[in-house]
Amino acid sequence: MYLAKVIGSAVVPQKIPSLNGKKLMLVEPITAGGETALGAQKVAVDAVGAGGGEIVIVAQGTSARQYFQEPNQGIDEVIVGIVDSLNCD
Amino acid sequence: MYLAKVIGSAVVPQKIPSLNGKKLMLVEPITAGGETALGAQKVAVDAVGAGGGEIVIVAQGTSARQYFQEPNQGIDEVIVGIVDSLNCD
Amino acid sequence: MYLAKVIGSAVVPQKIPSLNGKKLMLVEPITAGGETALGAQKVAVDAVGAGGGEIVIVAQGTSARQYFQEPNQGIDEVIVGIVDSLNCD
Amino acid sequence: MYLAKVIGSAVVPQKIPSLNGKKLMLVEPITAGGETALGAQKVAVDAVGAGGGEIVIVAQGTSARQYFQEPNQGIDEVIVGIVDSLNCD
Amino acid sequence: MYLAKVIGSAVVPQKIPSLNGKKLMLVEPITAGGETALGAQKVAVDAVGAGGGEIVIVAQGTSARQYFQEPNQGIDEVIVGIVDSLNCD
Repeated sequence: MYLAKVIGSAVVPQKIPSLNGKKLMLVEPITAGGETALGAQKVAVDAVGAGGGEIVIVAQGTSARQYFQEPNQGIDEVIVGIVDSLNCD
Repeated sequence: MYLAKVIGSAVVPQKIPSLNGKKLMLVEPITAGGETALGAQKVAVDAVGAGGGEIVIVAQGTSARQYFQEPNQGIDEVIVGIVDSLNCD
Repeated sequence: MYLAKVIGSAVVPQKIPSLNGKKLMLVEPITAGGETALGAQKVAVDAVGAGGGEIVIVAQGTSARQYFQEPNQGIDEVIVGIVDSLNCD
Repeated sequence: MYLAKVIGSAVVPQKIPSLNGKKLMLVEPITAGGETALGAQKVAVDAVGAGGGEIVIVAQGTSARQYFQEPNQGIDEVIVGIVDSLNCD
Repeated sequence: MYLAKVIGSAVVPQKIPSLNGKKLMLVEPITAGGETALGAQKVAVDAVGAGGGEIVIVAQGTSARQYFQEPNQGIDEVIVGIVDSLNCD
């Protein structure tokens, strides 16, 4: 899973049916120190009620998609947790 | 899913059968601000009627492929939505 | 799927059985403009009779592997189409 | 699998149920020489009792997720081994 | 699949059971010209008796894992062939 910051949301009226009713959030990959990490911003489906500015963990691929009941096609990035704190050694 | 801009289409007469009848679009990964993002241009199968210049969201891997009925081999990038707007915090 | 140029082939006598009889091509990821794209050269199994110098589209992962009947283990990149032309807006 | 150093842990009270009870570790991809490698830090589920500062190997995707019994959705990076030594030629 | 050079092996006494008895090799992604390619060194399970210094092809993900009988969790990179020669156009 990767660390990311929620930086907004995407309004996507024309989409495949399995994305209907899903919150499509804009996320920016970050490092544990909070800096922007290598890699473009992504669109991830929210599964935990994440809001703007929150630090989250995002899962990818089949592991992410399978959180949602069928139909779940077209989902390959899901926000699966909201980070409270990071304990760095 | 990643954000991308549709920059054209690919004419691919010689292809595996499961790609027959599919619209093969050229997409360029972009950031939420609209700049070209890290990562090469890709070929994605259109699932929502996306046209040139439109901002779209692209799903990858099995999650993408499974949008299409079998035979759907060889499909690992699918345009699953056309972005109307991005609300950035 | 990504765009690539076929730049050669790989002779791999010692390999897992499911790769026997498969044409292992050397491909270089390229942009729509034909320049070398970010990302290393890859080895992809040919499924459409692609030859040296041709511009192709390559699928990855399970979506690629499933084009071949079992046994198809160890196959995660497949040339699934030969590009005739790219229409860029 | 990639090499990584455990650099801490993530406290994620609000998460999808399948992550409950899982140790969420912060890992930094490294080279065989121990330098930080290309690629952002990640969050990986521990499967072998890895602690801070240890060098580990991390598996990704479905291969990683399937180590855990269902429900295992949302898991796409797992620490699957603690490195004792690396024999470099 | 990607090209790599075997640069050593990893001694990983504490690991998940499905990795027991598997040869864990250190591989460095290379270009067809033999230079180090973009991307960190990886740990790959050997399936063809590859030794130090040899040029190999590595498969990733489910396609790689499925070469091994169950239990095969935690395996997402497998050496599936030893390159004899590369014919570059």
